[in-house]
Amino acid sequence: MSRDRLPHVVIVGGGFGGMAAARALRNAPVRVTVLDRRNHHLFQPLLYQVATAVLAPGEIASPIRQLLRKQRNTAVGMLEVTGVDVQGRRVLVDYVGDEVQSLSYDYLVLATGVEQNYFGHDEFAPFAPGLKSLGDATTVRARVLRAFETAEVEVDPSRHRDLLTFVLVGAGPTGVELAGALAEMTRMTFRSDFRRIDPTSAHVILIEGGPRILPTFDEELSRKAHERLRSGGVEIRTGTHVEHIDDEGVVVGGERIRSRTIIWTAGVRPSPAGKWLQAPTDRAGRVSVQPDLTVPGRPEVFVVGDTAHLEQDGKPLPGVAQVAMQQGRYVGKVIASRVAGRPAPAPFRYFDKGNLAVIGRNFAILESGRVRLAGFPAWCVWAGIHLAFLPASGNRLIVFGQWAWTYLTRQLGSRLIHEYRGEPPVAQSAGTRMLS
Amino acid sequence: MSRDRLPHVVIVGGGFGGMAAARALRNAPVRVTVLDRRNHHLFQPLLYQVATAVLAPGEIASPIRQLLRKQRNTAVGMLEVTGVDVQGRRVLVDYVGDEVQSLSYDYLVLATGVEQNYFGHDEFAPFAPGLKSLGDATTVRARVLRAFETAEVEVDPSRHRDLLTFVLVGAGPTGVELAGALAEMTRMTFRSDFRRIDPTSAHVILIEGGPRILPTFDEELSRKAHERLRSGGVEIRTGTHVEHIDDEGVVVGGERIRSRTIIWTAGVRPSPAGKWLQAPTDRAGRVSVQPDLTVPGRPEVFVVGDTAHLEQDGKPLPGVAQVAMQQGRYVGKVIASRVAGRPAPAPFRYFDKGNLAVIGRNFAILESGRVRLAGFPAWCVWAGIHLAFLPASGNRLIVFGQWAWTYLTRQLGSRLIHEYRGEPPVAQSAGTRMLS
Repeated sequence: MSRDRLPHVVIVGGGFGGMAAARALRNAPVRVTVLDRRNHHLFQPLLYQVATAVLAPGEIASPIRQLLRKQRNTAVGMLEVTGVDVQGRRVLVDYVGDEVQSLSYDYLVLATGVEQNYFGHDEFAPFAPGLKSLGDATTVRARVLRAFETAEVEVDPSRHRDLLTFVLVGAGPTGVELAGALAEMTRMTFRSDFRRIDPTSAHVILIEGGPRILPTFDEELSRKAHERLRSGGVEIRTGTHVEHIDDEGVVVGGERIRSRTIIWTAGVRPSPAGKWLQAPTDRAGRVSVQPDLTVPGRPEVFVVGDTAHLEQDGKPLPGVAQVAMQQGRYVGKVIASRVAGRPAPAPFRYFDKGNLAVIGRNFAILESGRVRLAGFPAWCVWAGIHLAFLPASGNRLIVFGQWAWTYLTRQLGSRLIHEYRGEPPVAQSAGTRMLS
Repeated sequence: MSRDRLPHVVIVGGGFGGMAAARALRNAPVRVTVLDRRNHHLFQPLLYQVATAVLAPGEIASPIRQLLRKQRNTAVGMLEVTGVDVQGRRVLVDYVGDEVQSLSYDYLVLATGVEQNYFGHDEFAPFAPGLKSLGDATTVRARVLRAFETAEVEVDPSRHRDLLTFVLVGAGPTGVELAGALAEMTRMTFRSDFRRIDPTSAHVILIEGGPRILPTFDEELSRKAHERLRSGGVEIRTGTHVEHIDDEGVVVGGERIRSRTIIWTAGVRPSPAGKWLQAPTDRAGRVSVQPDLTVPGRPEVFVVGDTAHLEQDGKPLPGVAQVAMQQGRYVGKVIASRVAGRPAPAPFRYFDKGNLAVIGRNFAILESGRVRLAGFPAWCVWAGIHLAFLPASGNRLIVFGQWAWTYLTRQLGSRLIHEYRGEPPVAQSAGTRMLS
């Protein structure tokens, strides 16, 4: 059978779910096309380390093309998907700005993840970037580093305070990990670098609407994490909401906190996959999928990861990397079985290996089954797991080296502020035929 | 003597010249302030490797603050200098956008280097970025990588040709090194990564106005480099000028070459140091300095590196890193002698250690004294010298590892395309007092 006659599987999204699906189809008699608007797979759990200048962008991201280069049945397209023609079985893509083109599929896997959610306050975005992409992380890094640089040349003490106050909105794992790393950066790493300011006078404030930080974790562990952050110098305010954000700071419970550096780690919303498919969704907008992860009435369309809604034992599955990876792998198997005419695998079932969150060096919390751990042992597990799961083997060694170096010297590895001028002016182009 | 009473040396520019001057003042009874609009020192000789995705930005750049953190008499300010008040002995700096402030000095060292020169055609700039800063290099990298990505999803063969044609304008060391690396990238590294396009069909064209490439090198070596580039697949056009550049390509000698990726490596112009000082300059705008590198009539003002003009044995010194480093070190010594009341050192004399240019892997040309070398031995010298001179010792190991990895696996280390959202909207600020 020639390659062009093989069933075509289009996977949208090169995150944990999409990559797992592509890999599971490695030996199947299909041709696979992975589409992503970016050229890289991102290891999001370490993104906060790019934002805090410990790791460089290239150490936690690898080109999707490079990761899949040996998988001969798979092509990669750097394209932004704008919709799906479910009837015609075509994915609509945005190419060269103004031309909408399309790609036909036999099987479609949507692994399009989530985006930052400002809960109706998108006007906060310019003042409070989130932390979802490499662009976000280098933006946060530049703002944090520049705040210290500006404070160093500023003589007005009231401005020092504004410049060296960092506000994090939302105390889920990202907010907590970022707070821990920021506090450590100011207290340890920057100590010998500045002449006029005292970096240890920097102030990290973590704001959480709920009653406690890390709400998805066991209460006792959450309390230990709270203690650790507090003793590291982080001010934690729970049970309070951010009412306003502008260029001068945030307003919380009627009080204005002056700050030039605000980071939004409060929440996410699913990609528009539900709208594309006109499929039933939950309240948040996640596509409600069948136990085999297909869309009701569309056995050739699968949705996996953060943008899918599936209940197990009466509770919706959480939006974490593990769920996305297991779902991606499962969908790959389902498609491979169907193509080979084999019976379908049993319905998807998530196996929860546990949860981890890290607070600065030497301290993490871990829950797995009935195990609850806090402190250095949990940190060792955290470090080992994150190194083992980094997607390109070359990076593993470099990240390990970088960590060891930062650990021993207390110097940060990646403290650059540099611009990027973006794309050239685009030539006006006539209509283009596209991949089929 | 309290620190505030010590003579204040202001060094503008954290490049090779400025860093050498700062280091030479390490033990002098002065206080030093190094100003740069960027937060990092850049190892420019390897910038072409960032543009061609071999090295990551952080591997050839280090924060100035971090490099000088142990030098206790030295402060670093990330500030853009906008002028000099020579009478009042103050450096004018641009702070928070619209406020011009100033810094007083007892000694001033201008090491402000050069910028890209489009020779009266600044309208070419958006289509043909240069290669002077990390921002330039990541811009070139993104355009080159995106050209391949776009070609992979494009079915019109005439567009393939445009997308995979790379035009380099100017065959000095930067143009030649970039051409060699680009040709290698397309011919070797990308071979297994693409499914639809053949990356080896990519076309690298190097255009030079003069009669030969690498005009500052020995003619025989320049011929060997030419041969090596040609056999690596680079098309070289000498003795011809670029007449026009737009979004569709370049016009050379009346002929249009269609290309989406054009890189300007044709020339540089000095910083406006001459205008700031209202000092005599050469035709290009470099400040004509005395044999002790001071400005005529201003014994407290020094100019070093690419932005200074000094003749030795009847010829102007070249604009290379070695000259800047030796001049920076010399100026540091002159200032230290004056402060200590010791006699002035002998006039500056440049010691030329030789010149190197590299063409892809395994091949370089070298001239030093009467030695002329081309090929693998010269390449080994090149690799050794560049590793030895990288400014942060941590980087040396990483760059060596990255090179070894690329050399053995033929995979590139740093192939990311990612955006950066830049600065937040700035708060309007009242007048600010500045450092004195």
